[in-house]
Amino acid sequence: MKRKIAVVVTARPSYARIKTALSAMDDHPEIELQLVVAASALLDRYGSASTVIEKDGFRIASRVFMLLEGETPQTSAITTGLGLLEMATVFENLKPDIVVTIADRFETMATATAAAFMNLPLVHIQGGEVTGSIDEKVRHAVTKLADLHFVATEKARERIIRMGEEPSRVFITGCPSIDIAAEVARHPERTFDPFTSGVGAKQDLSGPYLIVLQHPVTTEYALARDQAIETLYAVRSLGLPVLWFWPNSDAGSDGTSKAIRWFRENDNTDKFHFFKNFPPEAFLQILNRCSCVIGNSSVAIRECAFLGIPAVNIGNRQDGRERGCNAIDTPGERESIVFAVKKQIAHGRFPSDPLYGKGEAGSRIASLLASVPLSIEKRLTY
Amino acid sequence: MKRKIAVVVTARPSYARIKTALSAMDDHPEIELQLVVAASALLDRYGSASTVIEKDGFRIASRVFMLLEGETPQTSAITTGLGLLEMATVFENLKPDIVVTIADRFETMATATAAAFMNLPLVHIQGGEVTGSIDEKVRHAVTKLADLHFVATEKARERIIRMGEEPSRVFITGCPSIDIAAEVARHPERTFDPFTSGVGAKQDLSGPYLIVLQHPVTTEYALARDQAIETLYAVRSLGLPVLWFWPNSDAGSDGTSKAIRWFRENDNTDKFHFFKNFPPEAFLQILNRCSCVIGNSSVAIRECAFLGIPAVNIGNRQDGRERGCNAIDTPGERESIVFAVKKQIAHGRFPSDPLYGKGEAGSRIASLLASVPLSIEKRLTY
Amino acid sequence: MKRKIAVVVTARPSYARIKTALSAMDDHPEIELQLVVAASALLDRYGSASTVIEKDGFRIASRVFMLLEGETPQTSAITTGLGLLEMATVFENLKPDIVVTIADRFETMATATAAAFMNLPLVHIQGGEVTGSIDEKVRHAVTKLADLHFVATEKARERIIRMGEEPSRVFITGCPSIDIAAEVARHPERTFDPFTSGVGAKQDLSGPYLIVLQHPVTTEYALARDQAIETLYAVRSLGLPVLWFWPNSDAGSDGTSKAIRWFRENDNTDKFHFFKNFPPEAFLQILNRCSCVIGNSSVAIRECAFLGIPAVNIGNRQDGRERGCNAIDTPGERESIVFAVKKQIAHGRFPSDPLYGKGEAGSRIASLLASVPLSIEKRLTY
Amino acid sequence: MKRKIAVVVTARPSYARIKTALSAMDDHPEIELQLVVAASALLDRYGSASTVIEKDGFRIASRVFMLLEGETPQTSAITTGLGLLEMATVFENLKPDIVVTIADRFETMATATAAAFMNLPLVHIQGGEVTGSIDEKVRHAVTKLADLHFVATEKARERIIRMGEEPSRVFITGCPSIDIAAEVARHPERTFDPFTSGVGAKQDLSGPYLIVLQHPVTTEYALARDQAIETLYAVRSLGLPVLWFWPNSDAGSDGTSKAIRWFRENDNTDKFHFFKNFPPEAFLQILNRCSCVIGNSSVAIRECAFLGIPAVNIGNRQDGRERGCNAIDTPGERESIVFAVKKQIAHGRFPSDPLYGKGEAGSRIASLLASVPLSIEKRLTY
Repeated sequence: MKRKIAVVVTARPSYARIKTALSAMDDHPEIELQLVVAASALLDRYGSASTVIEKDGFRIASRVFMLLEGETPQTSAITTGLGLLEMATVFENLKPDIVVTIADRFETMATATAAAFMNLPLVHIQGGEVTGSIDEKVRHAVTKLADLHFVATEKARERIIRMGEEPSRVFITGCPSIDIAAEVARHPERTFDPFTSGVGAKQDLSGPYLIVLQHPVTTEYALARDQAIETLYAVRSLGLPVLWFWPNSDAGSDGTSKAIRWFRENDNTDKFHFFKNFPPEAFLQILNRCSCVIGNSSVAIRECAFLGIPAVNIGNRQDGRERGCNAIDTPGERESIVFAVKKQIAHGRFPSDPLYGKGEAGSRIASLLASVPLSIEKRLTY
Repeated sequence: MKRKIAVVVTARPSYARIKTALSAMDDHPEIELQLVVAASALLDRYGSASTVIEKDGFRIASRVFMLLEGETPQTSAITTGLGLLEMATVFENLKPDIVVTIADRFETMATATAAAFMNLPLVHIQGGEVTGSIDEKVRHAVTKLADLHFVATEKARERIIRMGEEPSRVFITGCPSIDIAAEVARHPERTFDPFTSGVGAKQDLSGPYLIVLQHPVTTEYALARDQAIETLYAVRSLGLPVLWFWPNSDAGSDGTSKAIRWFRENDNTDKFHFFKNFPPEAFLQILNRCSCVIGNSSVAIRECAFLGIPAVNIGNRQDGRERGCNAIDTPGERESIVFAVKKQIAHGRFPSDPLYGKGEAGSRIASLLASVPLSIEKRLTY
Repeated sequence: MKRKIAVVVTARPSYARIKTALSAMDDHPEIELQLVVAASALLDRYGSASTVIEKDGFRIASRVFMLLEGETPQTSAITTGLGLLEMATVFENLKPDIVVTIADRFETMATATAAAFMNLPLVHIQGGEVTGSIDEKVRHAVTKLADLHFVATEKARERIIRMGEEPSRVFITGCPSIDIAAEVARHPERTFDPFTSGVGAKQDLSGPYLIVLQHPVTTEYALARDQAIETLYAVRSLGLPVLWFWPNSDAGSDGTSKAIRWFRENDNTDKFHFFKNFPPEAFLQILNRCSCVIGNSSVAIRECAFLGIPAVNIGNRQDGRERGCNAIDTPGERESIVFAVKKQIAHGRFPSDPLYGKGEAGSRIASLLASVPLSIEKRLTY
Repeated sequence: MKRKIAVVVTARPSYARIKTALSAMDDHPEIELQLVVAASALLDRYGSASTVIEKDGFRIASRVFMLLEGETPQTSAITTGLGLLEMATVFENLKPDIVVTIADRFETMATATAAAFMNLPLVHIQGGEVTGSIDEKVRHAVTKLADLHFVATEKARERIIRMGEEPSRVFITGCPSIDIAAEVARHPERTFDPFTSGVGAKQDLSGPYLIVLQHPVTTEYALARDQAIETLYAVRSLGLPVLWFWPNSDAGSDGTSKAIRWFRENDNTDKFHFFKNFPPEAFLQILNRCSCVIGNSSVAIRECAFLGIPAVNIGNRQDGRERGCNAIDTPGERESIVFAVKKQIAHGRFPSDPLYGKGEAGSRIASLLASVPLSIEKRLTY
């Protein structure tokens, strides 16, 4: 009997963090993959990850519409409540042997709580890391609801064990996003024309260019607009082409969007192109050629460490996350940002750092899911 | 400015675990108490805690109907999802400075998640303990969502700190239920006639009698009926009067109820009286005079340790919970139960054990809530 | 291509009102039946219609847990809201060509609204009747959301047309419950021992006996307890064996249940047996031999008109419903009830009245569903 | 004792349809207004009606976030389900004597169902009209849930009575939006600069200009994008300045938005300015000076009939709605639209037609709400 593995993808970036594992599950003779796509991953406004997922050949077993409009802390809670009750019905229909939840976005609490309450063994991918924002609370709460932990780093494993989880249930698999980065690094010649989507003028990517990935910080969500404005002014002043990616759906993302729209209406954005989404490989190919990645995305810390791309991390969203030497931190004022980016461009490429994985996470995860002993009983180890 | 403290009570037993703290908050000049009563605490079928609460003089600021019929793991998840989205609206209206959540029932995930997502400082009462069932996952997940921890025992504090919480945010307050037990112990002459409610014949309580408090174990919820049947046969065979309390609303409680109904229809229950609920003091007065308390309730471990009442703990629901010398463990077969109860009756009363508090928890909690520094930012300490 | 017909059953009595049509659909070569069982039809407390349905050989395509505990007007609204959002997901998965909703219980608003909003042709069974309570509003609102109307009587058809529906979309099919009554009438020798379920003493059914079917009236829901008490005293005073059926889940049903429990604890119920549910045929076999049916159920007006059983209809719940000569009306005071029942017993059996159908409703409905032209566009005819 | 009147506003256009009545209620000595703002009326993306409402001096008693992202038929159903369960809690807290629901947007089913189920007298404003789309079903279903009907036209009253409502419960009040139109007509000199908001170049409004108000048709929602594209090409070809208003939130509105964005990126929109929202008066001042209003909004049929503004109504969304001589109908192809607009511009201004009211609706509605006899019992009149 194949194991039925329900994997819940709730956002565009989560897909990149699981894609190679999904492929390995699809190929595994003892696994039946049940892919559940939910929340912003279904919506065009957030880059319609579901379309990319189907184009990549995966069958979607269930779709869960749950994202409430409004993007305030209150709507985050309502969204998660709605997701929790819908997910209960989805799991009742799919009857999976294992549920897999990815990382630490707020709405993953719906997946984790539904699975735990329904006595389904829960696997948490990428627990044990440390950052700021609501993600920090969500990530460790999911650890406490989960039965098995597939982590990216040695330090993450150590933290989860210190939190009282059984060592025999914590596995270092690396992060599947590094698998894609490794493939991109192996084929630097592969390229991709990004300007078939997004808005703004076509940019010249044969020379140096910048990439911005900036998300609102939910615990300071009222500031999202100002934070984005500072970054917009900073990167414009550098005079290089800028590829800017729209934020995920979070409390505050409306503020970021407003800042971008305001800037587009009121300032010169000839050197900017704004994007919603790419397939993960294409995204990393573009990233792999840029001079510096700027913002507060974990991509700058993870994939870029492996690829050796200079990164400027703004503000406290990634505070506490382990990092390689490719990233430097800066507060959110435009002068500080400009200073840091110039420094990174001057430095140029860094050596590859396998901190978050060596490129075999997908197959390792699939093998574990097919064979790991399952239990829903657990207790603090101390 | 008074601090607005929203306390969410979702079940009859949770009320006993917070009552003296509510009184102390009501009396505190710097606290405005916002009492939210939800889930089974509103329902007659589960002893209508809300009626007791109002009779005790507390004003209910908001009522949240959220309990779905069915009592399966799936309906637990739907109930919690519904509660989460309703609680978001309640908190938006009340705008509390602090949210207080009690212990580890499944639906407390709704309170904790709503508070964390809405950037409201969350105080968790009675974290850091260890037991079986879904409660274990819920309790530690709430710890990870909470900003402040008011625990009952030294060991609980140590565990929470080991889980990575800041020591300065973990306070030993004792459990408010012990405050009531202390008051009952101070006045052994106070008494109460239980037979004005419940069903079954009036029993003679001037001699020895037994009390049963048995809940379904959610991770084995299909067995609830059989587990209850074993206990029913065991206590009937002892020939003493039995005061039996109906279970809370949990996955499996329908099975327990069915067992009781079946037994009532098919067997001799002349010596049984079945109850739904008492005010906490009355309940402890009755408990304080019984020969042995039987089942798997934490009352047998906590309040009864303080009162020195012999207790027989059945099955794995309380596994891992710290206990005094008053409690012995037994598997769920009727012969084992009978053996253990006889042994405890033969032993008789134990000395008082202040493991879960000395009787000052309520005022200590109120003082802390009025003055403790508040923050919603936290990070693993390692 | 077979037409996919989603039929939503939300309560025990609705199943009797559709059963023969379900059989005819299952047998029809051009129909794929998608049976959705929801709300109280899933719950043991309300007679677990889903178990009967499966025992009858139907496959359940989807189960929707939606019934909130509490049974107040507020929980009716929450239940229906929850049902609406769950039903949307169910219909998205089943992708039916037609949705069928039955009669006028409050939660059928969830089915009807979900179907209408999702552009699915909606068939309403048993519209056009007139009664009291919230059912009256629900029934006609569903008519306005429905695209096709399968009614029981000529007068119902006329009313729906007067409400502005296209005459070509209104079909007199009769009520499927009469199909079962006709089968029972054809085989008066078939019998059934009811005393394998329910609570109370076994009664002698070889002589005269009474049946009570009493529901709370939602627009007077606070009175439910008193109304039931009057009926309990009335029927007890008649000295005949009484078979009493527990009410459906409605605002107020908790009051009715409480009355019954109170009466059982406090009064002599030697002559009573209390039931939750029977399969529809068995129920009508028992009904077919009783001396008088008492209460406010539509069964007394419909099936009993066909079977010619004397009926006493209490209060205003059935006001306005067309009736045959078998039923007389009475207010809810015990003296009036006693007087009316005595009069009906004295009269004895009435001739069969085919007002609500002749016994061919099931096959007529299936034929129509397989062939009727479908459209979701409609407009008032005036 | 003042009557507490809960008015639920769920969208920007509904506010214009009730505003003068809200003012009259606020001024009425026997009315306590409880304003509930919900769904898209809370959201910036849809013109943030709540901000306008507060700027106009109204106090918002409760806010209900309920709008799900996605804008498909399925999310309409989920939104309404969520709204229904939230509205139940809102009404429980506000305890209104009357609930007022406006017109026929899909989510008004939540308001109407919650009020009916909770035994609250429901007043429906602007029933009895006839149009296409899901609005037609919603409007008449709400009529069947409502206890009192305040309609705009003689014909609407007649229709509601024919549907079986008591004539004594149906009142012709006129539409409050005409009150604003009458005020604008009385002061043609009052003006307003629209170009402080919206996107696109400033246009010259001293000469002829066009206004477009185009909504998706929910029963054809997949076509929304194409329909908008045709209109965009049509109006651009006319060479006049165009003020284009973004659509409400409906199944399909995402398609309309996409069309507009696509057109902005790919075509010349120098003559276009795109708006989200205006205060109702400002909106009518702009409308009052335009050469022709184009699209499928009811504003073109109602307010513009009173103001005598030439209107071109596209497609079937307003089919069946009573109209004055100012409006002509056209299919959705660009050539037909161009032909019709040219014809209307050539004709110029029409005489005022008081079909939907004379300008006293607001005060008439407030007087009725303060004094009309209340009942929640009703029955078909035939």
